[in-house]
Amino acid sequence: MNILDEINSSADVKKLPEEQLPALCKALREEIIETVSRNGGHLASSLGAVELTVALHRVYDTATDRVLFDVGHQSYAHKLLTGRRERFSTLRQSDGLSGFCLPAESGDDAAVSGHASTSISVALGMARARTLKGEDRKIAAVIGDGSLTGGVAYEALSDCGDSGESIVVVLNDNDMSISRNVGGMARLLGQARVRRSYLAVKRSYHNTIGRVKPLYFVFHRVKEWVKDLFLPDNMFEDMGFYYLGPIDGHDLPTLIRVLGYAKEMDRPVLVHIRTVKGKGYPPAEENPSLYHGVGPFDRSSGVEPCAAPSFSSVLGEALCDMAAEDSSIVAVTAAMSDGTGLGDFAARYPERFFDVGIAEQHAAAMAAGMARQGLKPVFAVYSTFLQRAYDMLIHDIALSREHVVLAVDRAGLVGQDGITHQGAFDVGYLCQVPGMAVRAPSNFAELRSMLRFALAIPGPSALRYSRGGEGAFRVDTSDRDVAVLRQGEDVTIVSYGILINEALDASERLAEKGISAAVLKLNRLDRFDPAPIEKSLRKTGRLLVAEDTAYFGCVGERLLADMTRWDVPVYDQCLLNLGDGVVPHGSVAELRHRLFQDGEGIAFAAEKMLRNSSN
Amino acid sequence: MNILDEINSSADVKKLPEEQLPALCKALREEIIETVSRNGGHLASSLGAVELTVALHRVYDTATDRVLFDVGHQSYAHKLLTGRRERFSTLRQSDGLSGFCLPAESGDDAAVSGHASTSISVALGMARARTLKGEDRKIAAVIGDGSLTGGVAYEALSDCGDSGESIVVVLNDNDMSISRNVGGMARLLGQARVRRSYLAVKRSYHNTIGRVKPLYFVFHRVKEWVKDLFLPDNMFEDMGFYYLGPIDGHDLPTLIRVLGYAKEMDRPVLVHIRTVKGKGYPPAEENPSLYHGVGPFDRSSGVEPCAAPSFSSVLGEALCDMAAEDSSIVAVTAAMSDGTGLGDFAARYPERFFDVGIAEQHAAAMAAGMARQGLKPVFAVYSTFLQRAYDMLIHDIALSREHVVLAVDRAGLVGQDGITHQGAFDVGYLCQVPGMAVRAPSNFAELRSMLRFALAIPGPSALRYSRGGEGAFRVDTSDRDVAVLRQGEDVTIVSYGILINEALDASERLAEKGISAAVLKLNRLDRFDPAPIEKSLRKTGRLLVAEDTAYFGCVGERLLADMTRWDVPVYDQCLLNLGDGVVPHGSVAELRHRLFQDGEGIAFAAEKMLRNSSN
Repeated sequence: MNILDEINSSADVKKLPEEQLPALCKALREEIIETVSRNGGHLASSLGAVELTVALHRVYDTATDRVLFDVGHQSYAHKLLTGRRERFSTLRQSDGLSGFCLPAESGDDAAVSGHASTSISVALGMARARTLKGEDRKIAAVIGDGSLTGGVAYEALSDCGDSGESIVVVLNDNDMSISRNVGGMARLLGQARVRRSYLAVKRSYHNTIGRVKPLYFVFHRVKEWVKDLFLPDNMFEDMGFYYLGPIDGHDLPTLIRVLGYAKEMDRPVLVHIRTVKGKGYPPAEENPSLYHGVGPFDRSSGVEPCAAPSFSSVLGEALCDMAAEDSSIVAVTAAMSDGTGLGDFAARYPERFFDVGIAEQHAAAMAAGMARQGLKPVFAVYSTFLQRAYDMLIHDIALSREHVVLAVDRAGLVGQDGITHQGAFDVGYLCQVPGMAVRAPSNFAELRSMLRFALAIPGPSALRYSRGGEGAFRVDTSDRDVAVLRQGEDVTIVSYGILINEALDASERLAEKGISAAVLKLNRLDRFDPAPIEKSLRKTGRLLVAEDTAYFGCVGERLLADMTRWDVPVYDQCLLNLGDGVVPHGSVAELRHRLFQDGEGIAFAAEKMLRNSSN
Repeated sequence: MNILDEINSSADVKKLPEEQLPALCKALREEIIETVSRNGGHLASSLGAVELTVALHRVYDTATDRVLFDVGHQSYAHKLLTGRRERFSTLRQSDGLSGFCLPAESGDDAAVSGHASTSISVALGMARARTLKGEDRKIAAVIGDGSLTGGVAYEALSDCGDSGESIVVVLNDNDMSISRNVGGMARLLGQARVRRSYLAVKRSYHNTIGRVKPLYFVFHRVKEWVKDLFLPDNMFEDMGFYYLGPIDGHDLPTLIRVLGYAKEMDRPVLVHIRTVKGKGYPPAEENPSLYHGVGPFDRSSGVEPCAAPSFSSVLGEALCDMAAEDSSIVAVTAAMSDGTGLGDFAARYPERFFDVGIAEQHAAAMAAGMARQGLKPVFAVYSTFLQRAYDMLIHDIALSREHVVLAVDRAGLVGQDGITHQGAFDVGYLCQVPGMAVRAPSNFAELRSMLRFALAIPGPSALRYSRGGEGAFRVDTSDRDVAVLRQGEDVTIVSYGILINEALDASERLAEKGISAAVLKLNRLDRFDPAPIEKSLRKTGRLLVAEDTAYFGCVGERLLADMTRWDVPVYDQCLLNLGDGVVPHGSVAELRHRLFQDGEGIAFAAEKMLRNSSN
């Protein structure tokens, strides 16, 4: 019998005798490793938070209190403890459990999570609601040190510390955000970690010691010594938090005691705990980056580094090649160095590589400054995370037409990461940015060509490309805005990016049924000469647009409006897109199938149009 | 002869004998007060920064060095010193000088500014470009304490402190952001201001003193004493900055000396200066909030508080009324309490009013948390500033369908504030948010009705309304998504919001010429039953859509696509919108006229359509 069999809620966790808690942690780890090795998922974060999660359930009742997990990738143990163990084997699969927190999945999930750094904001809103409504529920937010580099977390800390609300922020400090932890916040935490005097002396005074009065230095040493001796004074206290820590995040009895104490305080409290990412699975402990988000792997041999080329790896390679020719090219990333394929660039051009942490807003505005002074920055970023820099794209990059290249990775469907991670909105929000040239490479050759083009032509531009590898279509058509891949008489299929493979597949399926489909590929999305589409539509009268973006802001709608403007008769039309953009988790192939965006679905929709109009 | 006659550059400022600098400051103030009293503008910020600006020009050369002014509303003295004095009387007028920084206006303006908090990011990008290219230009960013509450500023500080770059951040601390300065950052600065021990003892230990060991308290006092005595240690130093300050920002010789010292340091330096907003014009010193942004006023009597009702004031009143009936209603603002009309609400319901500072991201995510726990938050925010919370609208509000109401003020043209402030993108970005109901009240009665509706119906919704007052059309048509205001045979004019007045005006102008124009008004923008529009178009065959939003994401395009779907013959069509959304400064009436969005322009466009199709 498994100790987890009896646990379905915080109340059940509380009922366990204390001496059984280590066994509970062990069972949780076993279940997490087993399932993630089969389904893929966020392994290292969830393993690191096992003791913390058990402690939270000993102290809080997640069904009535509100406990928020920032990002939510560390919530697997929480899921296992709150009635979702039976379904845990469906993690990240179609119709299965989400890999993040989802209130629709369980009342124990306080809020949707997936993007970093907003948990303190949401928790503070909940705390204020609690107070205004006179309820007595307790509120806690768990946030990693990586997430703390995001500006909104700081906005929230500032408001929270000042609010006087009874709220606990648990800073889960594993010395590691998704890539390398960078910046001043890391430095601040580092100081709390290793006794401040060491770093203070080593870093802050390294450069200045020659310039300042010796007296100053001596007095500073005295001050640091007094500080270290008596009190871990830090920014959090200055902001109005009661600070507790740092605490060993794997020491369960201490965690329970400290969290219990924090919970009862009638003010904002910050509990700083230190954990080891990947704890309990040695390969993940040794290489937590590799085990941050993983595909299925063999437990005994561990994760094999992915060798298959992807749009990300090709972006990285191409950028290295072009950087060798042009010293003004620099790369910017927001804590996604590996994810966006910039690992090699970082190694080859360290002085031209800038990882700013989870700080997309800053990355975009900084890139604008670089461009203004003559560099050619390429900001590689996931589509869904770039949403955070929407205002900087307009205000700092577009209004002065800075030559910034956005390498928008994970555009369209991303699969198992689900609703918070699909790149469902970029076509709309990128085209809205004044003067932004938006291009959609559909294969590696086009990504290379379009990157070269984007770096050559002044002004802001974006390349949006999908997660994973290329398909069967590998011709470079990037010298045209609209490429006619196949002529046809019955229906005009327009698509772009990776979906062009499905459009071509559909045209073949249709050909087998005697239906002649034209396939036109858009290489540029913000503006293009619609003449080739017009020409085809004058033959077919039927337009089908397949695109992996939400309806609002999709290209298909714009095309239809264009056709009325050009007075092109469109007798029938079908827009296949991501609807409102809320697409749940599942494999990309499954999702595409459900959304009629695979070859079969596109062919089906085209055939239906033909049947309609022949009636 | 005016001392300003001889000054056209940093070099000219440097040439002046030191004893003439006070006279220069006086002349600058005189010119600023005179011009702003005639044209309106940002008075208090620019008056407060006069000595700082002169000092910057003594130390830097803004033509070759890069000096960034965050927001840019404090840059009037900078404009006067850099060759723009002759045109200064055209400030904020059509074809005149911008009220913010604009590289297209002068090479002495390092970057576009207008939105808060991005100057450090842009400056750091410039510093990195300088270093990589081996240039020797110096970089400085001037940022107010208000702007420092924005998360991106913190992201930038974190990266900047860690960068080691030679860069100076001047913190212009006037103890006052646009509304009240709030949050932990204010507290941090407060500690630097008034000697930390005072606040540390008063605030941090106020609640906890009973709980902690007496020894702790004693030692903390000792520590604070040591700290205060020898070193203004603070967060900035901890983040890697060399900290200089606080310095009296009106003490010109000291400013010049300290900035000169900071400029030469080969590392990130933060110069903390204290200034008085409105310095030199007593009414503005006494009430800096009133003199933040002003219309034309009489210099001797000062600014009269605006008594004319506006959409903002009506929003505030209506919210107060509804809050009296429903205790779950709360108001949230991001440092725009007065601007969004929430002053009375704040006074009547202080415990239900939340000003989070310039932190739109946090405001949106916090509102999500409030809504999830049963409150009904109304986040009142300017259209252009809400761009910053785009990701939170999707991730934190929409994905779990939280009942958050966005009161989107200053939608459409705002006039004199120009390209950085026009509310040109909200229709597109709000409609993109899954499940967001977007409504457009065209008068006060509709604003009240639609607010009541938004508070009654669960799920996210937005009301977008314009700056200023209502027009002649004052009927409440909010019970329909599409209201037919006027039947017609020749052309169908569709519009919404304040522009409906222009559409009606156009229809009358057209009637005088014997042209029968239907006028249809959209009350809801994200989705609506197009049947009334279809019906009208079957009569007229001509569609004209007038809307004060950018082309990408406009409703007109969607309508055209709808009509092809419904097989409605549209023989001719005309979309009147804000094009790419980059609309310069000028009065709203002038801008509207230039954009063919006034009655005359709409009538002209309609007539042209008729001429075309009768050819």
